[in-house]
Amino acid sequence: MSRNKSPVLAVDLGGTKVLAALVSAQGDIIQREYCLSLAKEGPESVINRLLATISYILDKAKLGISQLVGVGIATAGILDARRGLVTASPNLPGWHNIPLRDIVKSKLGVSVYLINDASAAALGEHRYGAGRDVDNLIYLTVSTGIGGGIIIGGELYSGVDGCAGEIGHMIIEADGPRCNCGNFGCLEALASGTAVANEAVSRINRGEKSSLAELAEGRFENITAEIVGVAARNGDHLACEVVAKAANYLGIGMTNLVNIFNPEKIVVGGGMAHMGDMLLEPARRVVGERAFQLPAGRVNIVPAQLGDDAGVIGAAAFVFEKRHN
Amino acid sequence: MSRNKSPVLAVDLGGTKVLAALVSAQGDIIQREYCLSLAKEGPESVINRLLATISYILDKAKLGISQLVGVGIATAGILDARRGLVTASPNLPGWHNIPLRDIVKSKLGVSVYLINDASAAALGEHRYGAGRDVDNLIYLTVSTGIGGGIIIGGELYSGVDGCAGEIGHMIIEADGPRCNCGNFGCLEALASGTAVANEAVSRINRGEKSSLAELAEGRFENITAEIVGVAARNGDHLACEVVAKAANYLGIGMTNLVNIFNPEKIVVGGGMAHMGDMLLEPARRVVGERAFQLPAGRVNIVPAQLGDDAGVIGAAAFVFEKRHN
Repeated sequence: MSRNKSPVLAVDLGGTKVLAALVSAQGDIIQREYCLSLAKEGPESVINRLLATISYILDKAKLGISQLVGVGIATAGILDARRGLVTASPNLPGWHNIPLRDIVKSKLGVSVYLINDASAAALGEHRYGAGRDVDNLIYLTVSTGIGGGIIIGGELYSGVDGCAGEIGHMIIEADGPRCNCGNFGCLEALASGTAVANEAVSRINRGEKSSLAELAEGRFENITAEIVGVAARNGDHLACEVVAKAANYLGIGMTNLVNIFNPEKIVVGGGMAHMGDMLLEPARRVVGERAFQLPAGRVNIVPAQLGDDAGVIGAAAFVFEKRHN
Repeated sequence: MSRNKSPVLAVDLGGTKVLAALVSAQGDIIQREYCLSLAKEGPESVINRLLATISYILDKAKLGISQLVGVGIATAGILDARRGLVTASPNLPGWHNIPLRDIVKSKLGVSVYLINDASAAALGEHRYGAGRDVDNLIYLTVSTGIGGGIIIGGELYSGVDGCAGEIGHMIIEADGPRCNCGNFGCLEALASGTAVANEAVSRINRGEKSSLAELAEGRFENITAEIVGVAARNGDHLACEVVAKAANYLGIGMTNLVNIFNPEKIVVGGGMAHMGDMLLEPARRVVGERAFQLPAGRVNIVPAQLGDDAGVIGAAAFVFEKRHN
């Protein structure tokens, strides 16, 4: 395999699973594997599973480590890019200043690059997905939490320490509900999948009627944003209101992004994006009503295209571009 | 005067006054003049005064128009940079899609560049003021309104249409008070000089005691943010609370900027910045409490250095750099 055909091994390390993939310089996935993160077992155990998944995929592809351009790891959390640390990660318990880059590098003997998972997805969508045709975009992933990535002038913007883009932790209700990050009134606390599920459960607990109780077979812990979405699509009144409320907050967050960045696109990925126009159409309406006319008229708010692969594809692009420079 | 010593004629067009200055390539002000905007008389009349001020300053400096590198105009409002329009400006009544660039260009026969006033101030502070030593900064001007400017990688970021940076119109209270822009709960509606004055007046109107009534000689329309600042410095309880409330909201706005941009500095200018640490210290505390630790520990929140000249100095830098490229 000649150097310019060498792939990157990209990993998307999340709270639920570790997705690893061999990705070509054209952004194609050559091979893909995943295993569960079992994050509760702590960093050491998670990192061992990550390394095992990498070995497995290399074996399967009959590739040696030296045939890789490098390894890119997309991780949820606040990364210190310069020092290669995962400083904190709400969905990875026990991860505080873990030198993930150097641990993996010393085990594998190959160049390793860390990138925030939403930043990686932003880069992936820009290079190969919904943002291919523009230079300035904001990517939002709306799922359990809300992550963000910023592309400016065709390049990923990641700030001085590499931790920019925490759009989910933009405060839009100064005294709003508590967020996973410890703060109050963050976009994530109001418009994420978790927020949608919590809102539905608390309204049902207050005695409001909804088909959700039935859909969840009476077990409120079964109520997820996905189930709320299904109920809303079937016309359940409470579910419709809960989705509309989240969409309104999402629109407020987007209004801020439009006024601050005047971007060409906002690309929306993550599990909640599967709700499609039920979520995006009211959000677009809020932007039309609350953002300045010129940038509101400019921006296209569109669903992401790469699905769950955005993170590994973007992490691979990140490595190819770093190695190239 | 040789070409490389030629100055730029820079104008800062605000709702209250038109400030014009001859600025050298080193950022020094050679000559400065101003006249009142008398904005209520409408665009034509304001533009005539702007042109007259330019003529006056050129006469006084014994310079012909051909000896200028160009003219830079910093203007409050939403500009369409590509088309040279002032699309809307809350403090300039009647300005809707006014082709200011081409009007001035056709009258003077010289290259004219438009730039948002807060963006100009951001550029000025970056090139010659409080931001000289960093590559990534956010500039905030807190006065009658709140404007913003974004410097990324040493360059002004202005978005696709040139209207990025409207940080004052970031919503931080989804259902907050109405803002001048027509929206609700913007940072400007909660932390600007206008917000401070309004809050003080409405509390006094509700019967609360304060030395402000006396300071304003019983005329509530005399109560400005400046007077509230003086009263707070003298220990007036109500004034202290009003300033603290605005500082808290300012800190929330800065928290969002820190989480989104991971900048090296936030530079604060405008009339309210004269309150100094009375305003900035509580805002810094909020950032320390509510932003992520890594970017919160990185950012320096500092007062601006160029005062009222930031706009013309920045507009001049903008023209020098455009003409150079």
